[in-house]
Amino acid sequence: MGRTTLQQIALSLNLSVTTVSKALRSYPDVSEKTIQKVKEAAKLLNYKPNTFAVNLRTQESKTIGLVIPEIVHQFFSSVIKGVIEEAEKNGYVVIVLQTSQDFETEKKRIEFLIDKQVDGILIAIADQTVDCFHLYEVQSMDLPVVMFDKISKSVSCSKVIIDDIKAGYEATKHLIDCGCKNIAHFRGPLTSQNSIDRYLGYKKALEESGLKFDESNVYHCIKMNFEEGQEQAQKLLQNNRSVDGIFINTDMVAVGAMTEFKAQGIKIPEEISIVGFGNWFLSSVITPSLTTIDQPSYTMGKIAFNTLLSELTKRKKNEHVEHETVILPTEIIERESTLARKKFNISL
Amino acid sequence: MGRTTLQQIALSLNLSVTTVSKALRSYPDVSEKTIQKVKEAAKLLNYKPNTFAVNLRTQESKTIGLVIPEIVHQFFSSVIKGVIEEAEKNGYVVIVLQTSQDFETEKKRIEFLIDKQVDGILIAIADQTVDCFHLYEVQSMDLPVVMFDKISKSVSCSKVIIDDIKAGYEATKHLIDCGCKNIAHFRGPLTSQNSIDRYLGYKKALEESGLKFDESNVYHCIKMNFEEGQEQAQKLLQNNRSVDGIFINTDMVAVGAMTEFKAQGIKIPEEISIVGFGNWFLSSVITPSLTTIDQPSYTMGKIAFNTLLSELTKRKKNEHVEHETVILPTEIIERESTLARKKFNISL
Repeated sequence: MGRTTLQQIALSLNLSVTTVSKALRSYPDVSEKTIQKVKEAAKLLNYKPNTFAVNLRTQESKTIGLVIPEIVHQFFSSVIKGVIEEAEKNGYVVIVLQTSQDFETEKKRIEFLIDKQVDGILIAIADQTVDCFHLYEVQSMDLPVVMFDKISKSVSCSKVIIDDIKAGYEATKHLIDCGCKNIAHFRGPLTSQNSIDRYLGYKKALEESGLKFDESNVYHCIKMNFEEGQEQAQKLLQNNRSVDGIFINTDMVAVGAMTEFKAQGIKIPEEISIVGFGNWFLSSVITPSLTTIDQPSYTMGKIAFNTLLSELTKRKKNEHVEHETVILPTEIIERESTLARKKFNISL
Repeated sequence: MGRTTLQQIALSLNLSVTTVSKALRSYPDVSEKTIQKVKEAAKLLNYKPNTFAVNLRTQESKTIGLVIPEIVHQFFSSVIKGVIEEAEKNGYVVIVLQTSQDFETEKKRIEFLIDKQVDGILIAIADQTVDCFHLYEVQSMDLPVVMFDKISKSVSCSKVIIDDIKAGYEATKHLIDCGCKNIAHFRGPLTSQNSIDRYLGYKKALEESGLKFDESNVYHCIKMNFEEGQEQAQKLLQNNRSVDGIFINTDMVAVGAMTEFKAQGIKIPEEISIVGFGNWFLSSVITPSLTTIDQPSYTMGKIAFNTLLSELTKRKKNEHVEHETVILPTEIIERESTLARKKFNISL
């Protein structure tokens, strides 16, 4: 008879593996009754907790979980495509789950994946995620986690990201090069590392160029959608008519803002120049077309899967796993929402 | 000892379940050697083929397969979202796979899902799919199939669709109501039922209104992407400058065509009015905004899952399963790419 596993205890009590794991460690969110029941069963079945947290799981499922904030989203749907294509090449199945940027939903998705006995998890965390205990939980069960795009510095794991500070810097620098003197920023949520870093890049570019950084020029977006772009554009026009450039955290918000400016008769780029982020397809077909930062989404999905696969392979061979952070390049795509001003500025 | 299953034979020979199933029925695409090996193993293990094709599978996997042509696609990513949300509510896992509109890839995806022992399959078939033997194969293994959006009439199963003839008719009728007299159509592939039906709707509207139907006004698209829209628009301008309206099979192609017309200085809608199909988000933000047919994608995903779930539930209870075809409503969304002409026409 082999070693008793968490799965066997879970099965015998009709509980989830997560609940059993938590009960054994007397987590406060598990009832006293359940904790007692689980501990009794563990004793009865002669369960030995593995302090090195190795081999808790009996066999590979050849299934991985992919947790993302949104499915109907140009960037994330391309990531899904990249992950699924690489997974299939390697005989893996992908369970795709969406959190809708909600922390509680994300925790539920993670529990679901643990119960489904995935071999590992790829995750871009929700903007509203405030702590990562659910991911430590995954790691404590010897499941590898790879984070991509939306990461938390508090989790020690491999990561596939872009350099958001650099990208935010270049976006803002481009506006400065186009002659903008009073540059606003539409940023994302305070809890999102991408948003923090793009904001820092914006600030750095202003400071380096000797332009004044003014916190009242920073507009906070929460939902990061089209409507919020319209609303923040309205606010900006009410507050400060002297803004002549805006770096906007994501293309969808930028397209919302441009729609509002056009409706109010503001000329882009002559009166306000705009740089977005993400190089969504729609940015190339709107009028004027939107200058933006291109970031690799499909490639990010492929590399995230392969990073996870490499960890799984090393674990199987009992080799040491070194966490790595892969930083993918970004590029500014210059289009009409800034270019005419650049020409004008150069001819001065 | 229980009854020998296909899975056991497959496992003992290190073959896929599909190959075993095919070998037992001496399919021509399985080698003579494999057929012999499988039949010997079947005899040895006392395998009894189940003529009613029931209970071939030993237990539920609570996993379903979702096969779609493209993931990075406004319509299909919304369908995925609808399917995943309903599945999760009901404790099911979804394996999402993409065919890139290719027939051979689709066959491989289906084999993969059979091997993964899914409980059932949701599929929108590829435009290039020319026969459905791979789906008959699924059904012969007692796995329910539900088709949505891109269906084949040759498969007897439940379907969730829209009325493409009616939608194509209404799109064309709207152009006629706007005063267009010479209406072209950019259609999709000849093998796609959607494309056939939208084309039939276009033809019907012309004929009912006493307008001449002219086959040379029908442009064939294969890839259904932005670039093809530009190319077909170029061709149309070379062929026939008297066309004053176009009904285009999908919004992405329509946006490509509009970009080309704008580049050549053609006024939309004054010189050429355009109606697209699908109500993609980008259609509402381009200039001029695009009149289009709204079709429910998220709802289609939800209903497709629930149709499959209802079949799975009935099968478990050994109840009779009646295939049903659910037809979801569509709606014309009138925007600038036709409206100005409508006003002009009315004022005549």
